[in-house]
Amino acid sequence: MAVSYNGQAYDGWQSQPSGRTVQDHLEQALARLLAVDEVSTLCAGRTDAGVHGLGQVVHFDSPLARPENAWVRGTNSFLPPDIAVQWARHVPDRFHARASAIARRYAYVLLESPVRPSVDAGRVGWVFRPLDQAAMTAAAEALIGEHDFTSFRAAACQAHTPVKTLRQIRILRRGAYWRFEFEANAFLHHMIRNIMGCLIAIGSGNRPAGWMAEVLAARSRDAAAPTFSPDGLYFLGPVYDATWGLPERTPAFDWLP
Amino acid sequence: MAVSYNGQAYDGWQSQPSGRTVQDHLEQALARLLAVDEVSTLCAGRTDAGVHGLGQVVHFDSPLARPENAWVRGTNSFLPPDIAVQWARHVPDRFHARASAIARRYAYVLLESPVRPSVDAGRVGWVFRPLDQAAMTAAAEALIGEHDFTSFRAAACQAHTPVKTLRQIRILRRGAYWRFEFEANAFLHHMIRNIMGCLIAIGSGNRPAGWMAEVLAARSRDAAAPTFSPDGLYFLGPVYDATWGLPERTPAFDWLP
Repeated sequence: MAVSYNGQAYDGWQSQPSGRTVQDHLEQALARLLAVDEVSTLCAGRTDAGVHGLGQVVHFDSPLARPENAWVRGTNSFLPPDIAVQWARHVPDRFHARASAIARRYAYVLLESPVRPSVDAGRVGWVFRPLDQAAMTAAAEALIGEHDFTSFRAAACQAHTPVKTLRQIRILRRGAYWRFEFEANAFLHHMIRNIMGCLIAIGSGNRPAGWMAEVLAARSRDAAAPTFSPDGLYFLGPVYDATWGLPERTPAFDWLP
Repeated sequence: MAVSYNGQAYDGWQSQPSGRTVQDHLEQALARLLAVDEVSTLCAGRTDAGVHGLGQVVHFDSPLARPENAWVRGTNSFLPPDIAVQWARHVPDRFHARASAIARRYAYVLLESPVRPSVDAGRVGWVFRPLDQAAMTAAAEALIGEHDFTSFRAAACQAHTPVKTLRQIRILRRGAYWRFEFEANAFLHHMIRNIMGCLIAIGSGNRPAGWMAEVLAARSRDAAAPTFSPDGLYFLGPVYDATWGLPERTPAFDWLP
Protein backbone atom coordinates (compact mmCIF):
# COMPACT_ATOMS: atom_id res chain seq x y z
CA MET A 1 0.00 0.00 0.00
CA ALA A 2 1.07 3.59 -0.58
CA VAL A 3 0.00 6.09 2.07
CA SER A 4 -0.09 9.92 1.95
CA TYR A 5 -0.26 11.96 5.15
CA ASN A 6 0.17 15.40 6.62
CA GLY A 7 2.61 14.89 9.50
CA GLN A 8 1.61 17.99 11.49
CA ALA A 9 -0.75 16.24 13.88
CA TYR A 10 1.33 13.09 14.45
CA ASP A 11 4.29 11.89 16.52
CA GLY A 12 5.98 10.62 13.35
CA TRP A 13 5.46 7.37 11.49
CA GLN A 14 6.62 4.72 13.92
CA SER A 15 4.17 3.21 16.41
CA GLN A 16 4.45 4.68 19.93
CA PRO A 17 2.71 4.04 23.26
CA SER A 18 0.95 7.41 22.72
CA GLY A 19 -0.90 5.87 19.78
CA ARG A 20 -0.61 9.23 17.98
CA THR A 21 1.50 8.08 15.05
CA VAL A 22 0.63 7.47 11.41
CA GLN A 23 1.49 3.76 11.75
CA ASP A 24 -0.83 3.45 14.78
CA HIS A 25 -3.72 4.99 12.82
CA LEU A 26 -3.06 2.87 9.75
CA GLU A 27 -2.81 -0.39 11.70
CA GLN A 28 -5.97 0.41 13.66
CA ALA A 29 -7.82 1.14 10.41
CA LEU A 30 -6.63 -2.15 8.89
CA ALA A 31 -7.62 -4.07 12.01
CA ARG A 32 -11.09 -2.53 11.93
CA LEU A 33 -11.46 -3.26 8.22
CA LEU A 34 -10.48 -6.91 8.75
CA ALA A 35 -12.26 -7.23 12.11
CA VAL A 36 -9.11 -8.65 13.72
CA ASP A 37 -7.26 -7.63 16.87
CA GLU A 38 -4.05 -6.52 15.29
CA VAL A 39 -2.32 -5.94 11.95
CA SER A 40 1.42 -5.30 11.75
CA THR A 41 2.80 -3.23 8.88
CA LEU A 42 6.36 -2.62 7.81
CA CYS A 43 7.23 0.64 6.03
CA ALA A 44 9.80 1.70 3.44
CA GLY A 45 11.12 4.60 5.50
CA ARG A 46 10.11 5.95 8.92
CA THR A 47 9.42 9.68 9.11
CA ASP A 48 9.96 11.96 12.12
CA ALA A 49 7.32 14.03 13.89
CA GLY A 50 6.09 16.84 11.64
CA VAL A 51 7.42 15.24 8.45
CA HIS A 52 4.88 14.53 5.69
CA GLY A 53 4.49 11.51 3.42
CA LEU A 54 3.26 11.53 -0.17
CA GLY A 55 4.06 7.97 -1.21
CA GLN A 56 5.09 6.01 1.89
CA VAL A 57 4.85 2.29 1.14
CA VAL A 58 4.00 -0.48 3.61
CA HIS A 59 3.63 -4.22 3.31
CA PHE A 60 1.72 -6.59 5.57
CA ASP A 61 0.34 -10.13 5.60
CA SER A 62 -3.42 -10.25 5.58
CA PRO A 63 -5.45 -13.09 7.04
CA LEU A 64 -8.22 -12.22 4.57
CA ALA A 65 -8.38 -11.53 0.84
CA ARG A 66 -9.85 -8.30 -0.51
CA PRO A 67 -9.94 -6.74 -4.02
CA GLU A 68 -7.25 -4.07 -4.41
CA ASN A 69 -9.77 -1.22 -4.66
CA ALA A 70 -11.53 -2.41 -1.52
CA TRP A 71 -8.26 -2.16 0.41
CA VAL A 72 -8.02 1.51 -0.59
CA ARG A 73 -11.63 2.55 -0.01
CA GLY A 74 -12.18 0.39 3.04
CA THR A 75 -9.04 1.45 4.88
CA ASN A 76 -9.62 5.13 4.09
CA SER A 77 -13.07 4.98 5.64
CA PHE A 78 -11.37 4.26 8.99
CA LEU A 79 -8.50 6.76 8.66
CA PRO A 80 -8.48 10.42 9.81
CA PRO A 81 -8.88 13.11 7.08
CA ASP A 82 -5.14 13.86 6.87
CA ILE A 83 -4.08 10.25 6.11
CA ALA A 84 -5.16 8.30 3.01
CA VAL A 85 -4.17 5.07 1.29
CA GLN A 86 -3.45 5.90 -2.37
CA TRP A 87 -3.14 2.45 -3.90
CA ALA A 88 -2.91 -1.21 -2.88
CA ARG A 89 -1.41 -4.16 -4.73
CA HIS A 90 -1.12 -7.85 -4.04
CA VAL A 91 2.60 -8.71 -4.00
CA PRO A 92 4.57 -11.97 -3.82
CA ASP A 93 5.82 -13.04 -0.38
CA ARG A 94 9.37 -12.10 -1.29
CA PHE A 95 8.42 -8.40 -1.60
CA HIS A 96 9.58 -6.32 1.39
CA ALA A 97 8.66 -2.61 1.58
CA ARG A 98 12.07 -1.67 3.03
CA ALA A 99 14.47 -4.34 1.76
CA SER A 100 13.12 -4.35 -1.80
CA ALA A 101 13.53 -0.55 -2.15
CA ILE A 102 16.49 0.34 -4.36
CA ALA A 103 16.25 4.07 -3.59
CA ARG A 104 14.29 6.66 -1.59
CA ARG A 105 13.14 10.11 -2.64
CA TYR A 106 12.40 13.15 -0.51
CA ALA A 107 11.46 16.75 -1.25
CA TYR A 108 12.05 19.80 0.95
CA VAL A 109 9.81 22.82 0.32
CA LEU A 110 11.07 26.20 1.48
CA LEU A 111 9.34 29.60 1.56
CA GLU A 112 11.67 32.52 0.82
CA SER A 113 9.91 35.61 2.12
CA PRO A 114 10.47 38.48 4.56
CA VAL A 115 7.27 37.24 6.25
CA ARG A 116 6.94 33.83 7.97
CA PRO A 117 4.56 31.13 6.61
CA SER A 118 0.82 31.48 7.34
CA VAL A 119 -1.58 29.66 4.99
CA ASP A 120 1.24 27.08 4.60
CA ALA A 121 2.34 26.94 8.26
CA GLY A 122 3.71 23.49 9.15
CA ARG A 123 4.03 22.57 5.44
CA VAL A 124 7.15 24.54 4.50
CA GLY A 125 10.49 25.57 5.91
CA TRP A 126 11.19 29.31 5.94
CA VAL A 127 14.09 31.60 5.10
CA PHE A 128 13.74 35.37 5.14
CA ARG A 129 16.95 36.11 3.26
CA PRO A 130 17.20 35.62 -0.55
CA LEU A 131 18.99 32.41 -1.54
CA ASP A 132 21.71 32.09 -4.18
CA GLN A 133 20.75 29.20 -6.46
CA ALA A 134 24.17 28.93 -8.15
CA ALA A 135 25.99 28.68 -4.81
CA MET A 136 23.58 26.01 -3.53
CA THR A 137 23.81 24.01 -6.76
CA ALA A 138 27.61 24.05 -6.60
CA ALA A 139 27.54 22.97 -2.93
CA ALA A 140 25.06 20.16 -3.62
CA GLU A 141 27.38 18.76 -6.32
CA ALA A 142 29.95 17.96 -3.63
CA LEU A 143 27.53 15.51 -2.00
CA ILE A 144 26.64 13.46 -5.09
CA GLY A 145 28.02 9.93 -5.14
CA GLU A 146 29.03 7.40 -2.48
CA HIS A 147 30.27 9.11 0.68
CA ASP A 148 30.55 8.71 4.43
CA PHE A 149 27.75 11.07 5.54
CA THR A 150 28.67 11.02 9.26
CA SER A 151 28.65 14.85 9.34
CA PHE A 152 24.93 14.82 8.47
CA ARG A 153 23.94 11.93 10.77
CA ALA A 154 21.84 12.30 13.93
CA ALA A 155 23.30 10.85 17.13
CA ALA A 156 20.28 8.52 17.41
CA CYS A 157 20.77 7.08 13.89
CA GLN A 158 20.51 3.27 13.82
CA ALA A 159 21.87 2.69 10.30
CA HIS A 160 24.54 -0.03 10.00
CA THR A 161 26.83 2.26 8.03
CA PRO A 162 27.16 6.02 7.42
CA VAL A 163 28.18 5.32 3.81
CA LYS A 164 25.31 6.09 1.43
CA THR A 165 25.02 6.87 -2.27
CA LEU A 166 23.35 10.20 -2.97
CA ARG A 167 22.20 10.04 -6.58
CA GLN A 168 20.66 13.43 -7.12
CA ILE A 169 19.84 16.79 -5.57
CA ARG A 170 17.60 18.97 -7.76
CA ILE A 171 16.97 22.59 -6.78
CA LEU A 172 13.84 24.10 -8.33
CA ARG A 173 12.10 27.39 -7.79
CA ARG A 174 8.52 28.56 -8.32
CA GLY A 175 7.92 32.16 -7.23
CA ALA A 176 8.55 32.47 -3.50
CA TYR A 177 8.89 28.68 -3.05
CA TRP A 178 11.96 26.49 -3.46
CA ARG A 179 11.77 22.73 -3.86
CA PHE A 180 14.83 20.58 -3.15
CA GLU A 181 14.55 16.97 -4.35
CA PHE A 182 16.83 14.26 -2.99
CA GLU A 183 17.35 10.69 -4.17
CA ALA A 184 19.70 8.20 -2.49
CA ASN A 185 19.91 4.44 -2.02
CA ALA A 186 19.09 5.22 1.64
CA PHE A 187 19.27 8.17 4.04
CA LEU A 188 20.67 8.48 7.56
CA HIS A 189 18.48 9.86 10.37
CA HIS A 190 18.12 13.67 9.94
CA MET A 191 20.41 13.54 6.89
CA ILE A 192 18.22 15.74 4.67
CA ARG A 193 17.41 18.25 7.40
CA ASN A 194 21.15 18.51 8.18
CA ILE A 195 22.03 18.94 4.50
CA MET A 196 19.27 21.59 4.21
CA GLY A 197 20.78 23.50 7.14
CA CYS A 198 24.12 23.60 5.28
CA LEU A 199 22.58 24.45 1.89
CA ILE A 200 20.71 27.37 3.45
CA ALA A 201 23.85 28.62 5.25
CA ILE A 202 25.54 28.65 1.83
CA GLY A 203 22.54 30.00 -0.12
CA SER A 204 22.11 32.92 2.25
CA GLY A 205 25.80 33.82 2.08
CA ASN A 206 26.80 32.82 5.63
CA ARG A 207 29.22 30.24 4.21
CA PRO A 208 30.97 29.85 0.82
CA ALA A 209 29.87 27.08 -1.57
CA GLY A 210 33.14 25.21 -0.93
CA TRP A 211 32.21 24.77 2.73
CA MET A 212 29.94 21.78 1.90
CA ALA A 213 32.93 19.65 0.82
CA GLU A 214 34.72 20.57 4.05
CA VAL A 215 31.71 19.57 6.16
CA LEU A 216 31.47 16.23 4.32
CA ALA A 217 35.20 15.54 4.71
CA ALA A 218 35.14 16.33 8.44
CA ARG A 219 32.99 13.26 9.21
CA SER A 220 31.81 15.03 12.33
CA ARG A 221 28.31 16.24 13.21
CA ASP A 222 29.91 19.31 14.82
CA ALA A 223 31.12 20.45 11.41
CA ALA A 224 27.63 20.91 9.92
CA ALA A 225 24.87 23.49 10.42
CA PRO A 226 22.05 22.85 12.91
CA THR A 227 19.27 20.43 11.88
CA PHE A 228 16.70 22.37 9.85
CA SER A 229 12.95 22.36 10.58
CA PRO A 230 10.88 19.20 9.76
CA ASP A 231 7.98 21.35 8.47
CA GLY A 232 8.96 21.38 4.79
CA LEU A 233 10.10 17.74 4.53
CA TYR A 234 8.08 15.30 2.38
CA PHE A 235 8.89 11.61 1.95
CA LEU A 236 8.03 11.09 -1.71
CA GLY A 237 8.51 7.37 -1.29
CA PRO A 238 10.71 4.42 -2.15
CA VAL A 239 11.80 3.35 -5.63
CA TYR A 240 11.35 -0.33 -6.54
CA ASP A 241 12.52 -2.31 -9.52
CA ALA A 242 10.00 -1.89 -12.35
CA THR A 243 9.39 -5.66 -12.42
CA TRP A 244 7.27 -5.30 -9.25
CA GLY A 245 4.81 -3.25 -11.33
CA LEU A 246 4.05 -0.75 -8.56
CA PRO A 247 2.92 2.85 -9.22
CA GLU A 248 5.81 5.33 -8.98
CA ARG A 249 3.88 8.32 -7.67
CA THR A 250 0.57 9.39 -6.15
CA PRO A 251 -1.70 12.34 -7.10
CA ALA A 252 -0.48 14.05 -3.89
CA PHE A 253 2.93 14.64 -5.57
CA ASP A 254 1.31 17.39 -7.63
CA TRP A 255 0.45 19.29 -4.45
CA LEU A 256 4.04 20.47 -3.97
CA PRO A 257 4.89 23.98 -5.20
CA MET B 1 -2.44 45.81 5.42
CA ALA B 2 -2.60 42.58 3.45
CA VAL B 3 -3.22 39.43 5.50
CA SER B 4 -2.75 35.75 4.56
CA TYR B 5 -4.43 32.99 6.55
CA ASN B 6 -5.39 29.36 6.58
CA GLY B 7 -9.13 29.37 7.31
CA GLN B 8 -9.32 25.80 8.66
CA ALA B 9 -9.11 26.74 12.33
CA TYR B 10 -11.35 29.82 12.23
CA ASP B 11 -15.05 30.73 12.21
CA GLY B 12 -14.48 32.86 9.10
CA TRP B 13 -13.21 36.42 8.80
CA GLN B 14 -15.84 38.49 10.56
CA SER B 15 -15.61 39.15 14.28
CA GLN B 16 -17.90 36.90 16.39
CA PRO B 17 -18.68 36.56 20.10
CA SER B 18 -16.68 33.29 19.98
CA GLY B 19 -13.54 35.33 19.29
CA ARG B 20 -12.36 32.53 16.97
CA THR B 21 -12.30 34.53 13.75
CA VAL B 22 -9.41 35.92 11.75
CA GLN B 23 -10.58 39.49 12.34
CA ASP B 24 -10.68 38.87 16.12
CA HIS B 25 -7.09 37.60 16.10
CA LEU B 26 -5.87 40.45 13.89
CA GLU B 27 -7.55 43.15 15.98
CA GLN B 28 -6.25 41.63 19.22
CA ALA B 29 -2.73 41.55 17.76
CA LEU B 30 -2.97 45.19 16.67
CA ALA B 31 -4.33 46.23 20.08
CA ARG B 32 -1.42 44.47 21.82
CA LEU B 33 1.11 46.04 19.45
CA LEU B 34 -0.30 49.52 20.09
CA ALA B 35 -1.05 48.86 23.78
CA VAL B 36 -4.60 50.12 23.36
CA ASP B 37 -7.93 48.56 24.32
CA GLU B 38 -9.35 48.12 20.87
CA VAL B 39 -8.57 48.50 17.18
CA SER B 40 -11.31 48.25 14.54
CA THR B 41 -10.41 47.07 11.06
CA LEU B 42 -12.48 47.03 7.89
CA CYS B 43 -11.76 44.37 5.24
CA ALA B 44 -12.06 44.19 1.47
CA GLY B 45 -14.12 41.00 1.49
CA ARG B 46 -15.36 38.78 4.34
CA THR B 47 -14.62 35.08 4.01
CA ASP B 48 -16.72 32.21 5.39
CA ALA B 49 -15.59 29.53 7.86
CA GLY B 50 -12.99 27.27 6.27
CA VAL B 51 -12.18 29.70 3.43
CA HIS B 52 -8.55 30.83 3.13
CA GLY B 53 -7.09 34.26 2.42
CA LEU B 54 -3.91 34.98 0.50
CA GLY B 55 -4.17 38.73 0.09
CA GLN B 56 -7.08 39.98 2.22
CA VAL B 57 -6.74 43.75 2.69
CA VAL B 58 -7.86 45.76 5.73
CA HIS B 59 -7.67 49.43 6.62
CA PHE B 60 -7.79 51.02 10.05
CA ASP B 61 -7.03 54.31 11.78
CA SER B 62 -4.10 54.10 14.14
CA PRO B 63 -3.68 56.34 17.16
CA LEU B 64 0.10 55.85 16.84
CA ALA B 65 2.61 56.06 13.99
CA ARG B 66 4.88 53.12 13.12
CA PRO B 67 7.24 52.45 10.20
CA GLU B 68 5.60 50.19 7.59
CA ASN B 69 7.97 47.27 8.31
CA ALA B 70 7.28 47.52 12.03
CA TRP B 71 3.56 47.09 11.37
CA VAL B 72 4.29 43.81 9.60
CA ARG B 73 6.83 42.35 12.02
CA GLY B 74 5.19 43.68 15.17
CA THR B 75 1.69 42.48 14.33
CA ASN B 76 2.94 39.05 13.22
CA SER B 77 4.65 38.53 16.56
CA PHE B 78 1.18 38.56 18.18
CA LEU B 79 -0.64 36.47 15.55
CA PRO B 80 -1.06 32.66 15.51
CA PRO B 81 1.17 30.68 13.09
CA ASP B 82 -1.54 30.34 10.43
CA ILE B 83 -2.21 34.10 10.06
CA ALA B 84 0.39 36.64 8.88
CA VAL B 85 0.42 40.24 7.74
CA GLN B 86 2.21 40.38 4.38
CA TRP B 87 2.63 44.10 3.87
CA ALA B 88 1.50 47.42 5.37
CA ARG B 89 1.25 50.85 3.76
CA HIS B 90 0.28 54.29 4.98
CA VAL B 91 -2.69 55.42 2.89
CA PRO B 92 -4.63 58.70 2.57
CA ASP B 93 -7.83 59.04 4.63
CA ARG B 94 -9.95 58.63 1.51
CA PHE B 95 -8.71 55.04 0.99
CA HIS B 96 -11.29 52.43 2.01
CA ALA B 97 -10.38 48.70 1.83
CA ARG B 98 -13.86 47.75 0.56
CA ALA B 99 -15.18 50.85 -1.25
CA SER B 100 -11.91 51.57 -3.07
CA ALA B 101 -11.69 48.03 -4.47
CA ILE B 102 -12.53 47.96 -8.18
CA ALA B 103 -12.51 44.14 -8.35
CA ARG B 104 -12.02 40.97 -6.25
CA ARG B 105 -10.16 37.80 -7.16
CA TYR B 106 -10.67 34.28 -5.83
CA ALA B 107 -9.18 30.89 -6.66
CA TYR B 108 -10.75 27.47 -6.13
CA VAL B 109 -8.35 24.51 -5.92
CA LEU B 110 -9.76 21.06 -6.65
CA LEU B 111 -8.17 17.61 -6.33
CA GLU B 112 -9.28 15.16 -9.03
CA SER B 113 -8.45 11.72 -7.70
CA PRO B 114 -10.15 8.41 -6.92
CA VAL B 115 -8.83 8.92 -3.36
CA ARG B 116 -9.93 11.78 -1.06
CA PRO B 117 -7.47 14.51 0.05
CA SER B 118 -4.97 13.70 2.84
CA VAL B 119 -1.80 15.82 3.00
CA ASP B 120 -3.95 18.64 1.58
CA ALA B 121 -7.11 17.99 3.65
CA GLY B 122 -9.01 21.23 4.28
CA ARG B 123 -7.08 23.04 1.55
CA VAL B 124 -8.74 21.62 -1.57
CA GLY B 125 -12.12 20.57 -2.84
CA TRP B 126 -12.38 17.01 -4.13
CA VAL B 127 -13.89 15.24 -7.13
CA PHE B 128 -13.32 11.55 -7.78
CA ARG B 129 -14.60 11.58 -11.36
CA PRO B 130 -12.45 12.98 -14.22
CA LEU B 131 -13.50 16.47 -15.32
CA ASP B 132 -14.01 17.65 -18.90
CA GLN B 133 -12.09 20.90 -19.31
CA ALA B 134 -13.73 21.86 -22.63
CA ALA B 135 -17.24 21.47 -21.21
CA MET B 136 -16.40 23.53 -18.11
CA THR B 137 -14.73 26.26 -20.18
CA ALA B 138 -17.78 26.51 -22.45
CA ALA B 139 -20.11 26.67 -19.43
CA ALA B 140 -17.98 29.34 -17.71
CA GLU B 141 -18.23 31.55 -20.82
CA ALA B 142 -21.98 31.89 -20.25
CA LEU B 143 -21.31 33.67 -16.94
CA ILE B 144 -18.87 36.31 -18.19
CA GLY B 145 -20.22 39.86 -18.25
CA GLU B 146 -22.87 41.75 -16.29
CA HIS B 147 -25.64 39.46 -15.11
CA ASP B 148 -28.23 38.97 -12.39
CA PHE B 149 -26.57 36.17 -10.37
CA THR B 150 -29.59 35.41 -8.16
CA SER B 151 -29.30 31.69 -9.01
CA PHE B 152 -25.87 31.60 -7.33
CA ARG B 153 -26.76 33.75 -4.31
CA ALA B 154 -27.07 32.45 -0.74
CA ALA B 155 -30.32 33.24 1.09
CA ALA B 156 -28.31 35.15 3.73
CA CYS B 157 -26.64 37.42 1.15
CA GLN B 158 -26.72 41.10 2.17
CA ALA B 159 -25.63 42.62 -1.16
CA HIS B 160 -27.75 45.56 -2.41
CA THR B 161 -28.12 44.00 -5.84
CA PRO B 162 -27.69 40.54 -7.42
CA VAL B 163 -26.29 42.17 -10.58
CA LYS B 164 -22.51 41.76 -10.74
CA THR B 165 -19.93 41.86 -13.51
CA LEU B 166 -17.90 38.68 -13.78
CA ARG B 167 -14.77 39.61 -15.72
CA GLN B 168 -12.94 36.31 -15.98
CA ILE B 169 -12.99 32.61 -15.11
CA ARG B 170 -9.70 30.84 -15.87
CA ILE B 171 -9.51 27.06 -15.61
CA LEU B 172 -5.97 25.71 -15.17
CA ARG B 173 -4.66 22.23 -14.47
CA ARG B 174 -1.46 20.92 -12.91
CA GLY B 175 -1.37 17.14 -12.60
CA ALA B 176 -4.18 16.00 -10.30
CA TYR B 177 -5.05 19.57 -9.26
CA TRP B 178 -7.35 22.04 -10.96
CA ARG B 179 -7.28 25.76 -10.24
CA PHE B 180 -10.28 27.93 -11.09
CA GLU B 181 -9.61 31.68 -10.95
CA PHE B 182 -12.48 34.18 -10.70
CA GLU B 183 -12.45 37.95 -11.06
CA ALA B 184 -15.53 40.18 -10.67
CA ASN B 185 -16.31 43.70 -9.55
CA ALA B 186 -17.89 42.01 -6.51
CA PHE B 187 -19.26 38.60 -5.53
CA LEU B 188 -22.51 37.58 -3.84
CA HIS B 189 -22.48 35.38 -0.73
CA HIS B 190 -21.56 31.77 -1.73
CA MET B 191 -21.48 32.83 -5.40
CA ILE B 192 -18.20 31.06 -6.22
CA ARG B 193 -19.06 27.89 -4.29
CA ASN B 194 -22.42 27.77 -6.09
CA ILE B 195 -20.78 28.32 -9.49
CA MET B 196 -18.23 25.59 -8.60
CA GLY B 197 -21.06 23.17 -7.82
CA CYS B 198 -22.50 23.79 -11.31
CA LEU B 199 -19.12 23.65 -13.09
CA ILE B 200 -18.40 20.29 -11.46
CA ALA B 201 -21.84 18.94 -12.37
CA ILE B 202 -21.02 19.86 -15.97
CA GLY B 203 -17.36 18.77 -15.89
CA SER B 204 -18.26 15.34 -14.55
CA GLY B 205 -20.95 14.85 -17.20
CA ASN B 206 -24.02 15.05 -14.93
CA ARG B 207 -25.22 18.09 -16.86
CA PRO B 208 -24.52 19.41 -20.39
CA ALA B 209 -22.41 22.57 -20.84
CA GLY B 210 -25.50 24.50 -21.93
CA TRP B 211 -27.10 23.98 -18.52
CA MET B 212 -25.08 26.88 -17.02
CA ALA B 213 -26.91 29.45 -19.17
CA GLU B 214 -30.24 27.93 -18.09
CA VAL B 215 -29.30 28.16 -14.42
CA LEU B 216 -28.24 31.80 -14.84
CA ALA B 217 -31.44 32.70 -16.71
CA ALA B 218 -33.65 31.03 -14.07
CA ARG B 219 -32.72 33.63 -11.42
CA SER B 220 -33.61 31.07 -8.79
CA ARG B 221 -31.32 29.40 -6.25
CA ASP B 222 -33.30 26.18 -6.77
CA ALA B 223 -32.02 25.97 -10.35
CA ALA B 224 -28.35 25.58 -9.39
CA ALA B 225 -26.28 22.73 -7.93
CA PRO B 226 -25.70 22.51 -4.15
CA THR B 227 -23.10 24.87 -2.62
CA PHE B 228 -19.67 23.26 -3.00
CA SER B 229 -17.21 22.78 -0.12
CA PRO B 230 -15.36 25.83 1.31
CA ASP B 231 -12.11 23.81 1.64
CA GLY B 232 -10.58 24.76 -1.71
CA LEU B 233 -11.61 28.44 -1.75
CA TYR B 234 -8.92 31.13 -1.51
CA PHE B 235 -9.61 34.88 -1.45
CA LEU B 236 -6.70 36.19 -3.52
CA GLY B 237 -7.66 39.73 -2.62
CA PRO B 238 -9.07 42.98 -3.92
CA VAL B 239 -7.84 44.94 -6.93
CA TYR B 240 -7.24 48.67 -6.44
CA ASP B 241 -6.47 51.40 -8.92
CA ALA B 242 -2.72 51.46 -9.56
CA THR B 243 -2.53 55.05 -8.34
CA TRP B 244 -2.79 53.80 -4.74
CA GLY B 245 0.59 52.10 -5.25
CA LEU B 246 -0.34 48.95 -3.31
CA PRO B 247 1.27 45.51 -3.96
CA GLU B 248 -0.93 43.32 -6.17
CA ARG B 249 0.01 39.93 -4.71
CA THR B 250 1.74 38.26 -1.78
CA PRO B 251 4.32 35.44 -1.78
CA ALA B 252 1.52 33.13 -0.55
CA PHE B 253 -0.04 33.25 -4.07
CA ASP B 254 2.74 30.92 -5.24
CA TRP B 255 1.58 28.26 -2.76
CA LEU B 256 -1.39 27.31 -4.96
CA PRO B 257 -0.98 24.28 -7.26
